[in-house]
Amino acid sequence: MDEFSLIKNYFAPLARDFPGSLGLRDDTALLDPRPGEQFIITKDAMCEGVHFIGDENPALIAQKLLRVNLSDLAAKGASPLCYFLAIMAPKNTKPEWFAEFTRGLAADQEQYCVALAGGDTTATHGSLALSLTMVGTLPKGTMLQRSGARPGDQVFVSGTLGDAALGLHIISSHSQGEDQGGGYNSLPKREREFLVERYLLPQPRLELGMALRGIATSCMDISDGLLQDMGHIGNASGVGATLHQEKLPLSSAARALLDKNSGYWEQVVGGGDDYELLFTAPAKHRDAIKQLSDSLGYSISLIGEITASKTVSLLDAKGNPVKVQQPGFQHFK
Amino acid sequence: MDEFSLIKNYFAPLARDFPGSLGLRDDTALLDPRPGEQFIITKDAMCEGVHFIGDENPALIAQKLLRVNLSDLAAKGASPLCYFLAIMAPKNTKPEWFAEFTRGLAADQEQYCVALAGGDTTATHGSLALSLTMVGTLPKGTMLQRSGARPGDQVFVSGTLGDAALGLHIISSHSQGEDQGGGYNSLPKREREFLVERYLLPQPRLELGMALRGIATSCMDISDGLLQDMGHIGNASGVGATLHQEKLPLSSAARALLDKNSGYWEQVVGGGDDYELLFTAPAKHRDAIKQLSDSLGYSISLIGEITASKTVSLLDAKGNPVKVQQPGFQHFK
Repeated sequence: MDEFSLIKNYFAPLARDFPGSLGLRDDTALLDPRPGEQFIITKDAMCEGVHFIGDENPALIAQKLLRVNLSDLAAKGASPLCYFLAIMAPKNTKPEWFAEFTRGLAADQEQYCVALAGGDTTATHGSLALSLTMVGTLPKGTMLQRSGARPGDQVFVSGTLGDAALGLHIISSHSQGEDQGGGYNSLPKREREFLVERYLLPQPRLELGMALRGIATSCMDISDGLLQDMGHIGNASGVGATLHQEKLPLSSAARALLDKNSGYWEQVVGGGDDYELLFTAPAKHRDAIKQLSDSLGYSISLIGEITASKTVSLLDAKGNPVKVQQPGFQHFK
Repeated sequence: MDEFSLIKNYFAPLARDFPGSLGLRDDTALLDPRPGEQFIITKDAMCEGVHFIGDENPALIAQKLLRVNLSDLAAKGASPLCYFLAIMAPKNTKPEWFAEFTRGLAADQEQYCVALAGGDTTATHGSLALSLTMVGTLPKGTMLQRSGARPGDQVFVSGTLGDAALGLHIISSHSQGEDQGGGYNSLPKREREFLVERYLLPQPRLELGMALRGIATSCMDISDGLLQDMGHIGNASGVGATLHQEKLPLSSAARALLDKNSGYWEQVVGGGDDYELLFTAPAKHRDAIKQLSDSLGYSISLIGEITASKTVSLLDAKGNPVKVQQPGFQHFK
């Protein structure tokens, strides 16, 4: 199937509801801003063997790609508008692969109210590489930043931490045919599947991000691990933070694993791929945040406070510092 | 060197003049439209071994990536604003590579008044893959389209055709250690270098695109070859075109090669990578277009006319159809 047939059969239907896509019959798209509107743009790439394994269902790869970018919008309080997609696929990629990949995109487009606006599909002699540029909108002046945290602010996180990193650990160990001393084989299947799904399918917290406009003094999504990303907020804001280990929100699956092997704390505080929102707010907003948690249907936990110290500390229940080997994910180490 | 050092040392300086980049300290950028302004967005990917060879100077690869995207803006009459860059590089890529790559970007940013706004740098287990999303602006309602060509309109092209495809042919044949019967070895070195440079460094015709607002009825940049791209305009406009072989603009280097081997006509009418503007306009604008050519310093040639026939014909000087084996470039054939 040639490039133009691929576009016509699989991608053009994804652009149908977004007139600015020009039906993908053009190399460009047209965005027409409404008065008082600003655009938030983010771009994340994913490569086979690094960000995904390669033998997943292509629909899941597509959804993860879309969702990690949506999560960046969530962190700014933006509402999704459209996206641009580059697929660099090995020349022998079958039409069935594109069919499944775009089926995943279609499902998430409906869920998150976003449409394809343009992109590029090319052959590569290398392995599958994907790049997505996401465009969101927000009312002028309402963007959530990383730089507004002030000493005394409270630190919150949505959902639960570490599930995705534990899910990846299960997938990786499984593919190597071993339970590397971690004891996850004794977890009920349902809980193992929960962790794996948390890795494969992040939940971008878009409604939360939008609701935090005017409330949060800083916000980001956790993609590199809690401690490293807390450090990003600290650096941008010129502050530090004290986080409390016993307050970190855990799923029952993660808690069960930690009970077996406390080494898994590394995944909880340093593992990437949570895609939960980490944000700060003055204490006066605590009730408003509690109400948000009730209305959104997932937890929002108070996990610490901002300090003037410029360092990030994690304390155990006795107030002693917790040692962490690997505080976050790095490319090109 | 880790990802954050790469950003700080090599990429942040490219974003310095664009406040919406948030200094690349964030995963997103903020675009603040001015009243009456629309955005044009385009995304082109390039892969090692497909769009570039891999052993070029990294600065040249960067410049080509930037320029093919700028060329898409030129085709819409847009003015460049900013771009987003995804680099998926093998893990052993050296800092020197990034230094050269960003040196190329810096030079072109200055030439084309555009700045880096965001992106993503990740490791890949595959070969080098690049994706760039370019944002341009234009006054509301002035975008050049592909769909406005009408029977009787004249067909124009900027610059000269086929140079890039002939340049690629020289590079490819040279790397295979042979002059494949084409006789290009008898070309003066200066002319061989001219053709190769036309392949490596396209010249986006941005001023021409902007000047064609209100004049051209359709416009696109030639990336897949003259005949195929003329077909794209024809399809979008519901028309056809008759083009005249003897009117196609050729560089002296291309003409010298054609004199030796008429087989090279394939490269002229079907080779990609010209990045010249192909556009249509009513005959009444012919003088205005002639003046544009004088002021811009490169030729704008009248090469044919739009017909109601819905097919694209290439005629020789006697009015007979010219046979073409391969009318354009295709991925995933």
